[in-house]
Amino acid sequence: MKIRPLYDRVVVIRREEEKTSPGGIVIPDTAKEKPIKGEVVAVGNGKVLENGQVRALEVKPGDTVLFGKYSGTEIKVDGTEYLILREDDIMGVLES
Amino acid sequence: MKIRPLYDRVVVIRREEEKTSPGGIVIPDTAKEKPIKGEVVAVGNGKVLENGQVRALEVKPGDTVLFGKYSGTEIKVDGTEYLILREDDIMGVLES
Amino acid sequence: MKIRPLYDRVVVIRREEEKTSPGGIVIPDTAKEKPIKGEVVAVGNGKVLENGQVRALEVKPGDTVLFGKYSGTEIKVDGTEYLILREDDIMGVLES
Amino acid sequence: MKIRPLYDRVVVIRREEEKTSPGGIVIPDTAKEKPIKGEVVAVGNGKVLENGQVRALEVKPGDTVLFGKYSGTEIKVDGTEYLILREDDIMGVLES
Amino acid sequence: MKIRPLYDRVVVIRREEEKTSPGGIVIPDTAKEKPIKGEVVAVGNGKVLENGQVRALEVKPGDTVLFGKYSGTEIKVDGTEYLILREDDIMGVLES
Amino acid sequence: MKIRPLYDRVVVIRREEEKTSPGGIVIPDTAKEKPIKGEVVAVGNGKVLENGQVRALEVKPGDTVLFGKYSGTEIKVDGTEYLILREDDIMGVLES
Amino acid sequence: MKIRPLYDRVVVIRREEEKTSPGGIVIPDTAKEKPIKGEVVAVGNGKVLENGQVRALEVKPGDTVLFGKYSGTEIKVDGTEYLILREDDIMGVLES
Repeated sequence: MKIRPLYDRVVVIRREEEKTSPGGIVIPDTAKEKPIKGEVVAVGNGKVLENGQVRALEVKPGDTVLFGKYSGTEIKVDGTEYLILREDDIMGVLES
Repeated sequence: MKIRPLYDRVVVIRREEEKTSPGGIVIPDTAKEKPIKGEVVAVGNGKVLENGQVRALEVKPGDTVLFGKYSGTEIKVDGTEYLILREDDIMGVLES
Repeated sequence: MKIRPLYDRVVVIRREEEKTSPGGIVIPDTAKEKPIKGEVVAVGNGKVLENGQVRALEVKPGDTVLFGKYSGTEIKVDGTEYLILREDDIMGVLES
Repeated sequence: MKIRPLYDRVVVIRREEEKTSPGGIVIPDTAKEKPIKGEVVAVGNGKVLENGQVRALEVKPGDTVLFGKYSGTEIKVDGTEYLILREDDIMGVLES
Repeated sequence: MKIRPLYDRVVVIRREEEKTSPGGIVIPDTAKEKPIKGEVVAVGNGKVLENGQVRALEVKPGDTVLFGKYSGTEIKVDGTEYLILREDDIMGVLES
Repeated sequence: MKIRPLYDRVVVIRREEEKTSPGGIVIPDTAKEKPIKGEVVAVGNGKVLENGQVRALEVKPGDTVLFGKYSGTEIKVDGTEYLILREDDIMGVLES
Repeated sequence: MKIRPLYDRVVVIRREEEKTSPGGIVIPDTAKEKPIKGEVVAVGNGKVLENGQVRALEVKPGDTVLFGKYSGTEIKVDGTEYLILREDDIMGVLES
């Protein structure tokens, strides 16, 4: 089963932060902050503006995005954990 | 009796999560989170925008939808439990 | 005396839920939740939108409607108890 | 002196509820809820909408109107107690 | 020095209520409610609406206006106490 | 270094109230209310309205303005204390 | 990796305040307020207005900007600490 998000919602899978900090120290799981990075899996058709216009989203499947720690709603489908966000929760796209 | 929802409201019947977790373990009822999946039974005519335009909804009867645990209002009609949501409470549609 | 509601307001008379539950058990009054069903008695001219357009209401006198338990304001006129709601408080219309 | 209300404001004089309940029992003053009925004395020119249009009010002097118990601001002018409401506080007009 | 208020602000000087109540009883200062009457001294150019239009105010210098007890900000200039209100704080104009 | 404020923001330098009250009594610093008068040093390009129009500000550098005691954010640059306000925090301009 | 901010967001790197106060006194770290100055690293495409128009931002990469102490969200990428702000959090641009 896959999730088709509505309007300005975005489906993301969290990407774990690297196990060790830059200094090479292994960060025990508990201390690790919830990862705030994830990969976009699906996007809605767009946000409906007050004048009825539908504005497509800026992010697209495959983007690696940054979002607030407490944003979105976690949903498990077929054993996989997804996070459903509003595009407005997403601060930026990580690009190499 | 059937419910005709108004405007951007959607009538849903909750669909129970599978009894067992993927690992096959039976989840006791109490521990089970309230199911956040349901089937759309009826949809309103659409949302009225500030310019007077009525925008049809994206979800339709028969869709399996995902929504927040605490969304909507539970209403019992003729012994059947329904949940009346705003379309904005619905995060996505589950598609095979 | 009758009440002419303004704009998007709707006058409703509460309809009691059936005395017994489907299983035939008589529900003592106290335990009974406040009925959330009622019949529309009168409707306002419509909601004024920001562009000045007046949008007629979807519900009409005679409709049986569903609304939240705590919605509206109770008003007694000539001994009859009415509930004055905003149309937005109404979730749907019950149709046979 | 008389009050000329601004925009969507309405000046009302409270009308006391009948002293006795329909069953003829005299309701002691303290138990009596604050009257939520009153007569319109003056109305503002109308509500200014975001597009600059001024929309005349639906109520007019002489109407008997119904409003929430705690709505409006009480103002005494030359010994007479008035209540100044927004038209939006008014739920309906009582008509014979 | 005089105050030129901005946009939809109004500069008012409070007018004391008469010292005695209609029944002739002298009201001790402390018990006296803060006067909610005042004379307009200056008005702003008007309120800017979302469409960029500037809408002139309805009140003008010299008007005696009524406003909520706790509205506005008190400012002293050259020893004189002024109250700066939004026009929306003003409920009506007292006219003989 | 100088501050170029954005949009509808205004940079102000506080102007102290006179040391003594009109009656000639010296007001000890602690008792003195925070001065709510200041001189405009720089203004933003204007406020962006929902229709995309940019509306120039009414205040200009050199104006002496009145604002609420707790408005704005204090910022020190090169040892000078500035206050950055929104124009909407400013109630009026003091003119001789 | 670099961050491409969305819409009206701005990526900033904090710039430390000078170690000593103008009077030459060394400010111990703890007492030092969080720096509220930073350099713009990247800006979003612009803010989407209700009429669908996208309005470019006023700040640009390289600008030194002033913002509230508690504004924005801190995000670490490849060991570098960034702050992601809304342009509306930025009060002004520091210019020599």
